[in-house]
Amino acid sequence: MRRQITGFSNPTVKFLRSLRDKKHRKEAGKFLAEGLRLLTDARESGFVPEVLVMAERRDPHPLIDALERDVIAGGGEVIETSDDILAKITGKDNPQAVAGVFSEFNTKLSVIDRSSAKIWLVAQALRDPGNLGTMLRTGDAVGAGGLILIDDCADPFSVEAVRASMGAVFTQKVAQAKWDDFLPWLRAGEGQLVAASLRDAVPYRGAPYAAPCFVLVGNESRGLPEDYELACDLRVTMPMRGRADSLNAAVAGAVLAYEVLAALD
Amino acid sequence: MRRQITGFSNPTVKFLRSLRDKKHRKEAGKFLAEGLRLLTDARESGFVPEVLVMAERRDPHPLIDALERDVIAGGGEVIETSDDILAKITGKDNPQAVAGVFSEFNTKLSVIDRSSAKIWLVAQALRDPGNLGTMLRTGDAVGAGGLILIDDCADPFSVEAVRASMGAVFTQKVAQAKWDDFLPWLRAGEGQLVAASLRDAVPYRGAPYAAPCFVLVGNESRGLPEDYELACDLRVTMPMRGRADSLNAAVAGAVLAYEVLAALD
Repeated sequence: MRRQITGFSNPTVKFLRSLRDKKHRKEAGKFLAEGLRLLTDARESGFVPEVLVMAERRDPHPLIDALERDVIAGGGEVIETSDDILAKITGKDNPQAVAGVFSEFNTKLSVIDRSSAKIWLVAQALRDPGNLGTMLRTGDAVGAGGLILIDDCADPFSVEAVRASMGAVFTQKVAQAKWDDFLPWLRAGEGQLVAASLRDAVPYRGAPYAAPCFVLVGNESRGLPEDYELACDLRVTMPMRGRADSLNAAVAGAVLAYEVLAALD
Repeated sequence: MRRQITGFSNPTVKFLRSLRDKKHRKEAGKFLAEGLRLLTDARESGFVPEVLVMAERRDPHPLIDALERDVIAGGGEVIETSDDILAKITGKDNPQAVAGVFSEFNTKLSVIDRSSAKIWLVAQALRDPGNLGTMLRTGDAVGAGGLILIDDCADPFSVEAVRASMGAVFTQKVAQAKWDDFLPWLRAGEGQLVAASLRDAVPYRGAPYAAPCFVLVGNESRGLPEDYELACDLRVTMPMRGRADSLNAAVAGAVLAYEVLAALD
């Protein structure tokens, strides 16, 4: 059954809109994902939204029908509303025809089964949600197991991160930990920690990568703290032929992850 | 000599603020770059702002002094103003202490001297200014000559693109062209056009790259049009081990560009 919502001040609209805000996401333990492609990726990965919001004026699509069926079968709620209200919920002028609400995933380190993948991505103090989502997307592409967020990172459940992940937020494990908890966890099992670094580093091509390989990138402006770099098992350096001494964090992680993939394949 | 500006309605403030808008940038032929690091990169690359705006309440810094000296020596204008007004100009809540106005560069294809670099990046209908700036930054890192923007791309002189380029907008050549002008230009000289593709493609590692190599990436959602792909000399494919069939455009360009760099080095 579909519920029609026509008023901006409807409490459900207010709730959905509040999920753009981190504080409210954490209170509710919910997040928002938009677009048929993303919601279909989620569904095919086994995640059906608890609330499905659809634009009244949408083009019919069999994947929307499939989504609606699954939401209802799962005991979820289906809401139809205007483009204007959908725009208000998603914060986009031209909103997608559908959006869905999901429960945030458990992000404790214990969700990481290191033996399940050869590559894991690790980001320290990554502040840009777009970079974070891009790293999830890259992780999916290289067959990584997931992304471990160290210290104070952007929220992986923000609309921007979910959007940039292109669905990988539903396929990659995500863990959040302080460095002082991550390092003992890492050292309690197998795992090689690798960072791109200018300090006492070997060329990134042909470096002795070993699985499970944890590829660590640092904060967008400050890079990695020195003691974090020194705690790594392997420091590698990428050619820097121009004026700059660093790459975009998500780019550095991707170039390195593809190199690790080629080495471990 | 420094000029103090205290009013939000000052015409210079209005002009500077208008440069956040593409239409006004094109009318004025000017763009805005912010931050001491970026302005120092620009200065060391031979570009001194025509107008330098400084926060009244800034920490003294020898690089700011050097910048101010060069601006005055070049006949430019130095303006001191409040944090609030600087925030209004740059559109950031926590503005950097300095910002500068530059003349937009010539972006005709004729600025590209293909023999001056082994790698050139090419983007088609790239809509995200952050991706565009990131490609400039990557181009700097791999020693590319510049970035050629095909069809309707984001503006390389937008505040977001300039910011994401981390100064590479001052070191990389930028050209803008329609595909129908680019392709004859390319074919009038040496040059291998390479695209990441799923169509009739060879593995990207060990592919027969040749200099000057033009690395082409497509639009964020639609990828490259089929006829553009078919016009390429080489189509390469990157491993996609997960659910997704593509990478972020700037990431794909970077992974490919680093592979080309390793092959041609």
